Amino acid sequence: MLDSRDAVFELHRGGKLAVVSTVPLATREDLSLAYTPGVARVCEAIAADPALVYEYTWVSHTVAVVTDGSAVLGLGNIGPRAALPVMEGKAVLFKQFGGVDAVPVCLATQDPDAIVAAVTALAPSFGGINLEDISAPRCFEIERRLDEALDIPVFHDDQHGTAIVVLAALRNAAIALGRKLGDLRVVISGAGAAGVAVTRMLVAGGVHGAEVVVCDSRGAIHSGRPDLTQVKRELAALTNARGVAGGIDRALDGADVLIGVSGGTVEEEALAGMNPGGAILALANPTPEVHPSVAHRYASVVATGRSDFPNQINNVLAFPGVFRGALDAGATRITEAMKLAAAEAIAAVAAHELGLDAIVPSALDARVAPAVAAAVAAAARRDGVTR
Amino acid sequence: MLDSRDAVFELHRGGKLAVVSTVPLATREDLSLAYTPGVARVCEAIAADPALVYEYTWVSHTVAVVTDGSAVLGLGNIGPRAALPVMEGKAVLFKQFGGVDAVPVCLATQDPDAIVAAVTALAPSFGGINLEDISAPRCFEIERRLDEALDIPVFHDDQHGTAIVVLAALRNAAIALGRKLGDLRVVISGAGAAGVAVTRMLVAGGVHGAEVVVCDSRGAIHSGRPDLTQVKRELAALTNARGVAGGIDRALDGADVLIGVSGGTVEEEALAGMNPGGAILALANPTPEVHPSVAHRYASVVATGRSDFPNQINNVLAFPGVFRGALDAGATRITEAMKLAAAEAIAAVAAHELGLDAIVPSALDARVAPAVAAAVAAAARRDGVTR
Repeated sequence: MLDSRDAVFELHRGGKLAVVSTVPLATREDLSLAYTPGVARVCEAIAADPALVYEYTWVSHTVAVVTDGSAVLGLGNIGPRAALPVMEGKAVLFKQFGGVDAVPVCLATQDPDAIVAAVTALAPSFGGINLEDISAPRCFEIERRLDEALDIPVFHDDQHGTAIVVLAALRNAAIALGRKLGDLRVVISGAGAAGVAVTRMLVAGGVHGAEVVVCDSRGAIHSGRPDLTQVKRELAALTNARGVAGGIDRALDGADVLIGVSGGTVEEEALAGMNPGGAILALANPTPEVHPSVAHRYASVVATGRSDFPNQINNVLAFPGVFRGALDAGATRITEAMKLAAAEAIAAVAAHELGLDAIVPSALDARVAPAVAAAVAAAARRDGVTR
Repeated sequence: MLDSRDAVFELHRGGKLAVVSTVPLATREDLSLAYTPGVARVCEAIAADPALVYEYTWVSHTVAVVTDGSAVLGLGNIGPRAALPVMEGKAVLFKQFGGVDAVPVCLATQDPDAIVAAVTALAPSFGGINLEDISAPRCFEIERRLDEALDIPVFHDDQHGTAIVVLAALRNAAIALGRKLGDLRVVISGAGAAGVAVTRMLVAGGVHGAEVVVCDSRGAIHSGRPDLTQVKRELAALTNARGVAGGIDRALDGADVLIGVSGGTVEEEALAGMNPGGAILALANPTPEVHPSVAHRYASVVATGRSDFPNQINNVLAFPGVFRGALDAGATRITEAMKLAAAEAIAAVAAHELGLDAIVPSALDARVAPAVAAAVAAAARRDGVTR
């Protein structure tokens, strides 16, 4: 594994990021402009008018990618240092697709109070906070408290990035299948960060909440279950009007769509009751809840999180453009309308070449982030959440 | 002041830093190495052996430049946002001279407990912590507590960077004057962050503590004064064996050296009692405690913090090389010996062209940081403070 010729480890030697100067520093004159004494005048101007920090510092194009290392990829709670390569990778993607400068911030605490305090403390250096790989249910409270405390966008990518791309995918899947979003029976396997956000976003985006059933490890979530957390009680109220109870096989009976965001697996037997001609989005990484070859026996559209199968559902389609648009508009937060606009923009890019095996654009499609950014910025202005 | 054609403001538009990728990201294969699924193996390797974070992330070459905006340049307590241009400038200098990647972290709190908690929380992302522009006496406690809490170097530049360069300058000044460090009577005007650290470093570097007198705004610090803080009591015990009391004019009577690190001014009358043939280092920025034209009437060596006079005493001679050396050696802290080694290295670079108007190298001299880095790294290894 640590063979020095291993391509992954070789690539990662010394990390994947550098901080570089964008100004010249060759002469005494350069030094006197970029540093003392010149810089003092810029400081004084910002002290007099704090809004100038967006004009004369890196804040206008820089976000922090913050994690506590508690839910990293499918690896679980591996801690802040082991999470750093993922956060660096995220920063690379931010730059490549969104032109956003991103700084990995891996926190040595998993206490929500301490995380909120630390991120609130460091916020003046950044134009946005991308929360990443923080486990549920702490992620909900942390995001809500930071969103309330800060005047810059706060966005938990595992929730909303996933939800945006899933909504985009399901919209296009419905078109490719000749169905309407509001007519689909949808089962969501997983009620963690992604499952909760996906459910809310699908309902906000046109899926009929009554016909959605969310399953956690104990089966279908319905309002009669006595073991629900606050977040799951809210999900129960939003979904499952028929009061489906029992295992996921019960939930999938007569369903059109399965969305897997559980990190677990769904047995083939459970799929047997699905209506033909539907969709299975099995997003667990690296092992999908249902292998595509199996999924194709029960659904016409099959998507995974993997790049080696068609229909890769990857958050990189969302987060670079979401933050680029939010920063461009001077947004102070990320609203529901901004997220819906992002999903529409992603779906629209794929619409031209739409097919059962092409419901979302390629993760490397350079058209996506600018389209998302423009849509998000416009929605921010419509929502009046700009500085 | 905000004329868009103003060179300083024009240079600062959009800030002075960018975060860039150091790896390719053009193909699916690139993406699978730098991000999922490849990155997961690097995460697992670090989880199994945390020391690998220094091999496979940016930690080995990256520091945080942390401030609370409480004592920025000579501007005082202007807060974190207005401090950001200085921290960006510092990061530019770190990169230019030390090849160190530096991230500005401007904190929205001035409470020492909260600062220690925030910096401790974000430390896993960085290989070192450069504290900057934090006012005394909080800076002493904050640095001490972080130094104890963290296993990476912590360095308050206003203290130690200044002290290192002042010691280097005074060593060479003594040579240029044909004097011995241990024979000089030294007055230090200012007992803030810089004054305290300069005093300690000069004594550690060969100046006779008994013959040093430190003055604060109330005059000479001596052990009989009832109004001393803990830090000043320690200074009193280290210095002023003759028990000089009263104003700075009394302290300067018979002194060979005046070092101004007060941010205030020293009246010309007070200089009249100085021994001829000495040195005045008036480091307040942008207005030196004594103007060089006045200082030259009373001293043979005159230095300031300004680039438009000879003998510019600037911390940039120290901090890039100090951190480069500490990171290169895998140092877990910055010891006294490492700081003394840095001062010796700076002095040695200037030794070849030594003169009354050339006691330190130019702030732009590219030979300095590598020499400092090598000396600091060697001292770290001698002190056994490496990983």
